[in-house]
Amino acid sequence: MSRVSLLSDLLGSFAPRIWFADRDANPEVSVDELAALCRKLVRSRGEATGVRMAADILAGIRSLDDQRCEAFFRILADEFAPDPQRLAEAAHAYASDPRAGTLARLQDEAEPPRQELFRRLNLAPGGTAELVKLRERLLPFVEADRETFKPVDTDLRHLFGSWFNRGFLVLKPIDWNTSARILEKIIEYEAVHAIDSWEALRSRLAPGDRRCFAFFHPSIPDDPLIFVEIALTREIPSSIAEVLTDARDHLSGRDATTATFYSISNCHKGLAGVSFGSFLIKQVAADLKETLPQLETFVTLSPVPGFARWLAGLTPEQRDGLEANEKRALEIVAEDGWTRDDRAADLARPGLLSLAARYFLVAKRGDGQPVDPVARFHLGNGAMLNRMMHLGDLSPGGLRRAHGLMVNYLYDLPRVEERHEAYADAQTIAASRQVSGHLPSGADRAPKKDRAKGQAA
Amino acid sequence: MSRVSLLSDLLGSFAPRIWFADRDANPEVSVDELAALCRKLVRSRGEATGVRMAADILAGIRSLDDQRCEAFFRILADEFAPDPQRLAEAAHAYASDPRAGTLARLQDEAEPPRQELFRRLNLAPGGTAELVKLRERLLPFVEADRETFKPVDTDLRHLFGSWFNRGFLVLKPIDWNTSARILEKIIEYEAVHAIDSWEALRSRLAPGDRRCFAFFHPSIPDDPLIFVEIALTREIPSSIAEVLTDARDHLSGRDATTATFYSISNCHKGLAGVSFGSFLIKQVAADLKETLPQLETFVTLSPVPGFARWLAGLTPEQRDGLEANEKRALEIVAEDGWTRDDRAADLARPGLLSLAARYFLVAKRGDGQPVDPVARFHLGNGAMLNRMMHLGDLSPGGLRRAHGLMVNYLYDLPRVEERHEAYADAQTIAASRQVSGHLPSGADRAPKKDRAKGQAA
Amino acid sequence: MSRVSLLSDLLGSFAPRIWFADRDANPEVSVDELAALCRKLVRSRGEATGVRMAADILAGIRSLDDQRCEAFFRILADEFAPDPQRLAEAAHAYASDPRAGTLARLQDEAEPPRQELFRRLNLAPGGTAELVKLRERLLPFVEADRETFKPVDTDLRHLFGSWFNRGFLVLKPIDWNTSARILEKIIEYEAVHAIDSWEALRSRLAPGDRRCFAFFHPSIPDDPLIFVEIALTREIPSSIAEVLTDARDHLSGRDATTATFYSISNCHKGLAGVSFGSFLIKQVAADLKETLPQLETFVTLSPVPGFARWLAGLTPEQRDGLEANEKRALEIVAEDGWTRDDRAADLARPGLLSLAARYFLVAKRGDGQPVDPVARFHLGNGAMLNRMMHLGDLSPGGLRRAHGLMVNYLYDLPRVEERHEAYADAQTIAASRQVSGHLPSGADRAPKKDRAKGQAA
Amino acid sequence: MSRVSLLSDLLGSFAPRIWFADRDANPEVSVDELAALCRKLVRSRGEATGVRMAADILAGIRSLDDQRCEAFFRILADEFAPDPQRLAEAAHAYASDPRAGTLARLQDEAEPPRQELFRRLNLAPGGTAELVKLRERLLPFVEADRETFKPVDTDLRHLFGSWFNRGFLVLKPIDWNTSARILEKIIEYEAVHAIDSWEALRSRLAPGDRRCFAFFHPSIPDDPLIFVEIALTREIPSSIAEVLTDARDHLSGRDATTATFYSISNCHKGLAGVSFGSFLIKQVAADLKETLPQLETFVTLSPVPGFARWLAGLTPEQRDGLEANEKRALEIVAEDGWTRDDRAADLARPGLLSLAARYFLVAKRGDGQPVDPVARFHLGNGAMLNRMMHLGDLSPGGLRRAHGLMVNYLYDLPRVEERHEAYADAQTIAASRQVSGHLPSGADRAPKKDRAKGQAA
Repeated sequence: MSRVSLLSDLLGSFAPRIWFADRDANPEVSVDELAALCRKLVRSRGEATGVRMAADILAGIRSLDDQRCEAFFRILADEFAPDPQRLAEAAHAYASDPRAGTLARLQDEAEPPRQELFRRLNLAPGGTAELVKLRERLLPFVEADRETFKPVDTDLRHLFGSWFNRGFLVLKPIDWNTSARILEKIIEYEAVHAIDSWEALRSRLAPGDRRCFAFFHPSIPDDPLIFVEIALTREIPSSIAEVLTDARDHLSGRDATTATFYSISNCHKGLAGVSFGSFLIKQVAADLKETLPQLETFVTLSPVPGFARWLAGLTPEQRDGLEANEKRALEIVAEDGWTRDDRAADLARPGLLSLAARYFLVAKRGDGQPVDPVARFHLGNGAMLNRMMHLGDLSPGGLRRAHGLMVNYLYDLPRVEERHEAYADAQTIAASRQVSGHLPSGADRAPKKDRAKGQAA
Repeated sequence: MSRVSLLSDLLGSFAPRIWFADRDANPEVSVDELAALCRKLVRSRGEATGVRMAADILAGIRSLDDQRCEAFFRILADEFAPDPQRLAEAAHAYASDPRAGTLARLQDEAEPPRQELFRRLNLAPGGTAELVKLRERLLPFVEADRETFKPVDTDLRHLFGSWFNRGFLVLKPIDWNTSARILEKIIEYEAVHAIDSWEALRSRLAPGDRRCFAFFHPSIPDDPLIFVEIALTREIPSSIAEVLTDARDHLSGRDATTATFYSISNCHKGLAGVSFGSFLIKQVAADLKETLPQLETFVTLSPVPGFARWLAGLTPEQRDGLEANEKRALEIVAEDGWTRDDRAADLARPGLLSLAARYFLVAKRGDGQPVDPVARFHLGNGAMLNRMMHLGDLSPGGLRRAHGLMVNYLYDLPRVEERHEAYADAQTIAASRQVSGHLPSGADRAPKKDRAKGQAA
Repeated sequence: MSRVSLLSDLLGSFAPRIWFADRDANPEVSVDELAALCRKLVRSRGEATGVRMAADILAGIRSLDDQRCEAFFRILADEFAPDPQRLAEAAHAYASDPRAGTLARLQDEAEPPRQELFRRLNLAPGGTAELVKLRERLLPFVEADRETFKPVDTDLRHLFGSWFNRGFLVLKPIDWNTSARILEKIIEYEAVHAIDSWEALRSRLAPGDRRCFAFFHPSIPDDPLIFVEIALTREIPSSIAEVLTDARDHLSGRDATTATFYSISNCHKGLAGVSFGSFLIKQVAADLKETLPQLETFVTLSPVPGFARWLAGLTPEQRDGLEANEKRALEIVAEDGWTRDDRAADLARPGLLSLAARYFLVAKRGDGQPVDPVARFHLGNGAMLNRMMHLGDLSPGGLRRAHGLMVNYLYDLPRVEERHEAYADAQTIAASRQVSGHLPSGADRAPKKDRAKGQAA
Repeated sequence: MSRVSLLSDLLGSFAPRIWFADRDANPEVSVDELAALCRKLVRSRGEATGVRMAADILAGIRSLDDQRCEAFFRILADEFAPDPQRLAEAAHAYASDPRAGTLARLQDEAEPPRQELFRRLNLAPGGTAELVKLRERLLPFVEADRETFKPVDTDLRHLFGSWFNRGFLVLKPIDWNTSARILEKIIEYEAVHAIDSWEALRSRLAPGDRRCFAFFHPSIPDDPLIFVEIALTREIPSSIAEVLTDARDHLSGRDATTATFYSISNCHKGLAGVSFGSFLIKQVAADLKETLPQLETFVTLSPVPGFARWLAGLTPEQRDGLEANEKRALEIVAEDGWTRDDRAADLARPGLLSLAARYFLVAKRGDGQPVDPVARFHLGNGAMLNRMMHLGDLSPGGLRRAHGLMVNYLYDLPRVEERHEAYADAQTIAASRQVSGHLPSGADRAPKKDRAKGQAA
């Protein structure tokens, strides 16, 4: 029987909320006071005052301006790091005699005390969400001074990787029955195609041919981590405008054959690098298939964020080597307002798609992966580059970043695994004939074999 | 704004349940095959097959008999450990040049690959509960061969300490509205005063003067982690029989003044050493106080599990030094059936309580803490030893372990913190006069000052 | 827009629970006092004290012994009836001049004041459940003195017909995740095949090849109104023992082809005559078909409660006209212990099934419907008499009432309506060849055409 | 034990949703076809096709234009009425021999068949809400031709009185955690102080010093029946602007002493005359008191909708008898824009309040109750007229209807009952000295004693 009497429990203790709920954090707390509290929290033998200290510290951090915040992070970086001397000794001891005992000591000394600090800060009500915000505040400092602050970031990200393990996340539908508290966050977080009013939100959530799903962490129940928006249609949409318009025939979900993932947004900068996106897409695809078994096609409607920049970065030699229609396309899209001139737009089409085929299939980063970040994400998930849509996104951003191009990535569920493996092992890019057919005959598709070791992610 | 487009996300991938739900684990899986799967899971660049592999591995482990299970744990211990050579190099590098870069490498090499393995096994549906059971299976091997298996245990416990952080646990009432699925686990897990039928369970949960609360983890929603049973009374009960009998006047909760915590049970051996008990008691006390503000007294009704053993271990010299009534008590309780002889039982009382006072207040372990494990737990929480009850537990176990003695620990909410600190800093034992008054005048209460460093927990 | 300001609201008022929650009902309340309170409640212009008075009255009724209870019902019958004189006048007025005005007055005078009394008693917390219990107490008095008490019963049943309209009922699965509070009621209410322990209950609810569903009323959320127990199997079971045994291969629900409704129990005598049973069976069948589309067959496993009594009531002439094997069967089953003699049991089989075919297909009540009440229920629902099982129920009750016979009624969903209509219009009994084949050639199946008008129920 | 086997159940039957869910209502259904379906539904012996017929009929009614809808209601009025001849006979029979049997027959004949029709229409999914909408469509026809349509309305209202019995309603908080589906209805239904955006809604629901509660019926879970909005403050607000502004210090609910009910809206015209308002206010007041025990004062902030109309209707003689300051006030408020002239507004104040005191305390309807409908509602509930606020509502409607006057009604919980009784029995108006002090000395407060019998409700 799985049972253990309390007797084997270790001692520990804390002060529950009733004793301090009405205490206010001191808004004038100094960085030194905060550091002292942190030291006390980490060292406290029992956790008698743990919950209260954790809440006080988090409230104190919230009240810091940027300058004092940097100072606080600096203390975390310097003081709550491993003790170099003791760690060096432990390293010596292990190196000269690698046994269980010396290993345990080495591991012990190598773990920065701030990891324990973060775990104890999590005792405070709402602590998990606060720690995510803490990392969001940290990130600009990491960018400015990587040497100092990166180790703090590494510890937080390590912790979040454990806490936000996919096994703990909960997938929930977001619809018109969802609370206003969550829905206003959806409006706030939508990063791809902005939602500018509650009416616009309604038109994405309430109709029978629209769906939205989000991952939640049980400790942050009213704030999504990532969400995806889906259009159920009879055909793959050929532009984002077609998806977002209200002037369409509304379908019943039962009549749709195609699920188009047209927007996916991460919600918290503080969780950058803790990946949920691929889980979300595949779980949602699987769930939709179970509920609406007549669905046959699962595709994205995706931006091509690096296309224009890549074109702009071509060397004169590379430009010289282009086909005639490609050159013409480059000339056309260099003019303002070309999309409003139907003839010009038509004329640009073949060359632009040809260039796009090069961009996706030939252009590579040092590690052998495509230049386009969205392509890397979906191909890495096991999707196939399915279709390129000229004039798919005529919004200013769409024109600036991709000359209006959008693409579909197809999630062919039975083949997702195999494609993922082929991409992971050999950077093999799955692409439909519609896409590869646009590649000029001379262009070379072979993936670089000499990709840098370990850069797959 | 806290928002991040998916573009910055890393690649990752998994195969959702719909594709493999109907696969059965191979019941004939060999340890070698399992190890190979584990290697594959840890190395997989994306997580394309992660969920499925995790489920397959966990199902495989479940099917192992003890011998093969030991072999599997041995592989975890040997092969999924840090690489001694690379770690030794990293240790050297850090020791000779302690910088951020060398530290990061050292930390990286010091983390055993099995930690990542465990995190990925958690992807499987029900993975968290399975991993807890995995540790339960591991523990006997740790006991038998600490050198080999303790490091594996350390990794699991480290992970559980993070996953089962108090900040993630949910406190829920257990009552007659609770599901049968959970209630049958309460019957199974009750470790202190066994529940022998659903009727007995009902009499502990349904009446208005009884309460039960448990901690749950969101990923294991129908299996409690720890629970406590409470009697609401007008006076502190003087025996466990008084609490468990149905032949009592039933109170409304609103009429009670005293909450007696008469049983607290940990539910999972696999979570040994991951402490929730003190959190539970204090949270429940605080919640009860909020709901029933007229409650004044929060006490336990606790066993004294080490008393008889301690008495039996007294040296002849120590026995010689006892008071006359103490000697007489020892003679009486040596006879079978002494509790059924009212006169003998009365006669034993003063001596037994005097001995108990020594046991609690004078007898110490090497670290300066009391010998009694339950006393260490509650005193460490900040409770006070409040009352000793002669003939408090006449069950066979109660007589065998404590000659029928029970005690109360009082949780005086406003003083809990201060008492916790005094105990943690100087092993100061808070005891009422009722208790300390039984101490023979010659006995010395002073705590040992020279307690061994670092043994506080 | 559907909106109405409060201004058009009528005045009304009541005293909410906070003002009287701790008042106790006077346990010594007299019938006269109760009647006075009832008068006051009905007459109160506003409903200022309505909730409190309702609670007091219901508590008062609960405290009445049978004699005083009868006296109280008598007051309801006499005093809270329509005023004969005023009603006679209204009847006269309408009869001589049938207009809207005289009709309204007539309707008004014809409604007994106790209907308004019952509606106001429903204001009390838990009032709906109390009123159901009130009718349960009333029913024996109705049986004893129909003339006096039937009108009171009619009013309650009329009200319940409105309140327990199928449109308000909620269908819920009952399983091992259901609360103990509800499950102990399932144990209590099971009327067909008694459940004698929580373990027995578990074996009916927890396995994957067992289901249970109940109707609930939203105002009585923890007390079911009616429930049905279902076995999922690969074939139609041929005895109840086969269903109830634990010694069987457990199926996954996904592997079953047949759903057998083996027990259906109404829970409250106070709702007698308010029919939910047919709704329940068909709704559950439809829901199961949606969840487990591979299910093909929906049958009951039903008792034949009137068979032995009908046989015992045959006249000597009728007995003389029986076939030889029928006569032999009657002789065999007249012996104690015949079921334990395999040869005798085999020998009895053809004659018993032949008699049963007569019982179901030929024997009729005055209204042209079959004698068997269970048959009337299921045939009226549109089911078909599908199979007769010799030795299907060897329990003492099964032998006493039906000489061990059980039957299946088949709910063939696409044909249920048509069969219902044929039965309702012409008492056409749908029976399989397996059943009708047992009918001796001379027996006449034609339904009586001259059934009494209006006796369909 | 309360248990009844199914055997005593009556036969009945219906076709569950799976068989007809995808049938569409015929949008071209004629009134005659609908009437035929209704006849069939009422006469159906079992309820085999009940659910489907009900859904078809309701869908058919929805598709009717106004003209055909009137025709349909006319059929309900004429044909689904009691049979005059049979009812006349039953009336005769009872009048000449008033016994249980003749009474039962009379009652039976007096109940219009459309009542059973409505009960069976409720079988359709969503039927309850549809029937409420049906009555909303009926009401204009009742107004236009009372003689014909009132009896139909009476039947629906009778049914709703039973179905929407307070005992079945559920009180729920409406806040920022409420679903968007319900919140958009709050925006739509707010009848007193319009909510013009989601931001405005948020400012009424989300802050800690604002509350909103609604009654729901279990069968219409996402559409409130009535709701009330509350401001928690430290003092009674003296104008509605003060309540609605965001530019205020936000309180914690724990710091408030006063709960001001500043808006109460019925949501469905189809439930006119089925009163929930007084229940709602008192229940909410009691619940708030329980949650926030420091609350001392429960008042409304109410409009005075009939004041201006009443003033306009004074006869020349009545005007002549007014005090000088009253006459001056009447002159001032006759000018456009008087509220923007501080001096004029001040000057109008004493006269206007004096006139208001007459309006509330002296002016009476034929039944002895005050002229003001809001006053009748709250006084009837047992509230006291507490304070009159000059310039309390400067909105166009507030000026037009009440020359800017607002009032508070005080719900003094311990005295509510007594005041209700005094008002119900003798039309005694509870008014504070602040109010009655404004009454000119000559004005007579005595309630009319000769109020018309039976008009109290």
